[in-house]
Amino acid sequence: MACPYQVCEWRSPEDLTKLLDLELGEAGQAPAQTLQHCRDAIHYSVKTNHPHFFNQLYVGLDHYAMVGSFVTDATQPSLYTYEMAPVHCLIEKVVLEKMMEMIGWVEGGDGIFNPGGSMSNMYAMNLARFQRFPEVKEQGLSACPRLVLFTSEECHYSVAKAAAFLGIGTKNVYVVPADQSGKMIPKELEKQIRTAISEGAVPFMVSATAGTTVLGSFDPIEELADVCEEHNLWLHVDVSSAHSVAWNPHKMLMAGQQCSAFLVRDKTGLLQRCHSACASYLFQKDKFYDISCDTGDKSIQCGRKADAFRFWLMWKALGTRELERRVDHALEMARYLTEGIKKRDGFRLLMEPEYTNVCFWYIPPSMRKIPDSPEFWQKVEAVAPKIKERMMKTGSMMVGYQSHGINANFFRMIIISPWVSTKDMDFVLDEIHRLGADL
Amino acid sequence: MACPYQVCEWRSPEDLTKLLDLELGEAGQAPAQTLQHCRDAIHYSVKTNHPHFFNQLYVGLDHYAMVGSFVTDATQPSLYTYEMAPVHCLIEKVVLEKMMEMIGWVEGGDGIFNPGGSMSNMYAMNLARFQRFPEVKEQGLSACPRLVLFTSEECHYSVAKAAAFLGIGTKNVYVVPADQSGKMIPKELEKQIRTAISEGAVPFMVSATAGTTVLGSFDPIEELADVCEEHNLWLHVDVSSAHSVAWNPHKMLMAGQQCSAFLVRDKTGLLQRCHSACASYLFQKDKFYDISCDTGDKSIQCGRKADAFRFWLMWKALGTRELERRVDHALEMARYLTEGIKKRDGFRLLMEPEYTNVCFWYIPPSMRKIPDSPEFWQKVEAVAPKIKERMMKTGSMMVGYQSHGINANFFRMIIISPWVSTKDMDFVLDEIHRLGADL
Repeated sequence: MACPYQVCEWRSPEDLTKLLDLELGEAGQAPAQTLQHCRDAIHYSVKTNHPHFFNQLYVGLDHYAMVGSFVTDATQPSLYTYEMAPVHCLIEKVVLEKMMEMIGWVEGGDGIFNPGGSMSNMYAMNLARFQRFPEVKEQGLSACPRLVLFTSEECHYSVAKAAAFLGIGTKNVYVVPADQSGKMIPKELEKQIRTAISEGAVPFMVSATAGTTVLGSFDPIEELADVCEEHNLWLHVDVSSAHSVAWNPHKMLMAGQQCSAFLVRDKTGLLQRCHSACASYLFQKDKFYDISCDTGDKSIQCGRKADAFRFWLMWKALGTRELERRVDHALEMARYLTEGIKKRDGFRLLMEPEYTNVCFWYIPPSMRKIPDSPEFWQKVEAVAPKIKERMMKTGSMMVGYQSHGINANFFRMIIISPWVSTKDMDFVLDEIHRLGADL
Repeated sequence: MACPYQVCEWRSPEDLTKLLDLELGEAGQAPAQTLQHCRDAIHYSVKTNHPHFFNQLYVGLDHYAMVGSFVTDATQPSLYTYEMAPVHCLIEKVVLEKMMEMIGWVEGGDGIFNPGGSMSNMYAMNLARFQRFPEVKEQGLSACPRLVLFTSEECHYSVAKAAAFLGIGTKNVYVVPADQSGKMIPKELEKQIRTAISEGAVPFMVSATAGTTVLGSFDPIEELADVCEEHNLWLHVDVSSAHSVAWNPHKMLMAGQQCSAFLVRDKTGLLQRCHSACASYLFQKDKFYDISCDTGDKSIQCGRKADAFRFWLMWKALGTRELERRVDHALEMARYLTEGIKKRDGFRLLMEPEYTNVCFWYIPPSMRKIPDSPEFWQKVEAVAPKIKERMMKTGSMMVGYQSHGINANFFRMIIISPWVSTKDMDFVLDEIHRLGADL
């Protein structure tokens, strides 16, 4: 279904710089001008809540979550201590507990909201390392053997970033091959573990993925958990058999950027022991209340926003059932789109989707008679970038594209919004054809 | 001046849990209930914009900044790429350039907004390490000698947290003594550098502070810069002679949590080289626009909020002169308060403030005749926690307290808000006396 307003009104960096009055001056300005800046910022921003925005692993945010973020913006809590953020220390606790209940940790655990999934993965890596070598906190890696972790070739790039940042090094992230559907192969993991040990390195962690970035694949967690148990490795992922979990309600649940929980199954206070610095100006020992509510020393940040609140507020308003219905709806739309791709001339599915990522090629009519060959794929490689350029300049929708392994550039649709319909799915395929039919 | 509403309406964790209806259920609820949750969250939150909130290094936020955060909350940009956040990639660039201009980097540099000063300090440490040992990104610290950095005993705890997180280890943060006014002593720094070298370690960085957390002291940056140049060390701090800077507009300038810029003087792309992961689904090489606007690969995050916008909006609205006036006003109030402390019976200044942190003791009448002695200070130690408890329960104001080195618990007032007056300063001292006169 065509929409009366555009996803974006594309301007080049040069043109947009000219359009917006960016310069900061000595004098202030009239409120009317400030209001105009707000209008411009909205006008030229991508409409992430638009029904044809499928470009990222998030779309806009739920309306209740938006109200929640207005409340925390206006009140500015910072979650160091209970005295500074009484409401939000309690709400964060309740939300974390509920999340752990949902992933099946019947005995609970610990956790912390933080600025994004990449940070959650860093937390996991730091905890896994600290649990195995507690001396690393004080003495650093110069006191440790070479540490190695494992992840699949389909993992998110934040695993490599985390390894670099934490001083482990990207080469010590051993990349385990995935099968054709994008799942880590447990036998290959075992092989890599043996390789690392034979080199004299110490394996300490497996970072698995439930819903990979590109293909939306789920690693075989139970099998990986068995391998981890055998080799005493920390398993980071998002299901019940893991030691830790990164769960981003700002993605599929639309809780607004950034709403990302790191959950850890440990109940011995590992999160605090690993990150504590015991600053005397915040965490006084002679407080008059129960300081177990002070969450600041579990975090690698100092000030920390109340990101749990808007998720809590929308959860309260909508209930678990509605959240579940929304995920089911997105999955249904992904199935509908997949069937459409199979039925239509000129569309080819990369693989059967496991989640709401739908990856596919569009083959313009002029190329449809060319047999599968390196020349054919070389031509296909140029199609998605060109259609994306036209899409952006038209502003009719936003869908990402990329190449992946040996696969030439394809479209990656991410379906999240509960407000999209089968008509929107039809629109996506119609529009891609409309934009690319002459290529 | 007494205020018609409280800074906080104190409830213990147990009582507040009972008051708020925290549980998350299967079913949703009526909008009226959701609205009530918002009212409760506001009611029981600390009023950080209250004229008697002096508890942290931030207070509330500027009104224009609040509008700015509503705009970015509603539009949900994420700063991976120009196509996803065209307005905000440009605005961030302009704000970073203006900030570098203000600290005197005439040739510019590079930088990135990130979730808080602690993160900025981590960025600095990672860049300093990477610049000296570029192989650390791939090979990790196991390929490096033991690295040592230096900071003063007055530094923020995030330096230790960063060292732990980055695999350097807190014991490799060599703590340099400060003088009585809280400034790092350059001669002592040189001594520590020699010690590290004699141990076979490699010094790589000095983390200095301009405005320490407790005392508000400024390290002697120019002298430290000379020492750093001599020993080829990265200097991280917030003035023009530094290699990198952490500047948090959410503190003194009230741009709203979290608005924190990491600035680096380097112009060779160090920030990107150090943190890039080149994810193909975001940073395609065949884009149709200038990809130098895509900031995502400079960040350790993936999704990243548009924190620069609200700072830019308030700066536009107020102008540089008004920002300057606000800082001057806060300094003036700090001086006024200091004079009040000197004049009044029972108040003792810890040291002459250099910035807007004013540290002082209150001595109740019953203790004023006791001579300075360990017994006297033991009694004083209990005064601030007790007054703080009464203050919280009354909700009349919020001021932090802490012990510090050999100094018994004292109050640490932080003055930031442009809307506080000399009457509010008088109120603070009157109120402390009112709350503690019977102790």
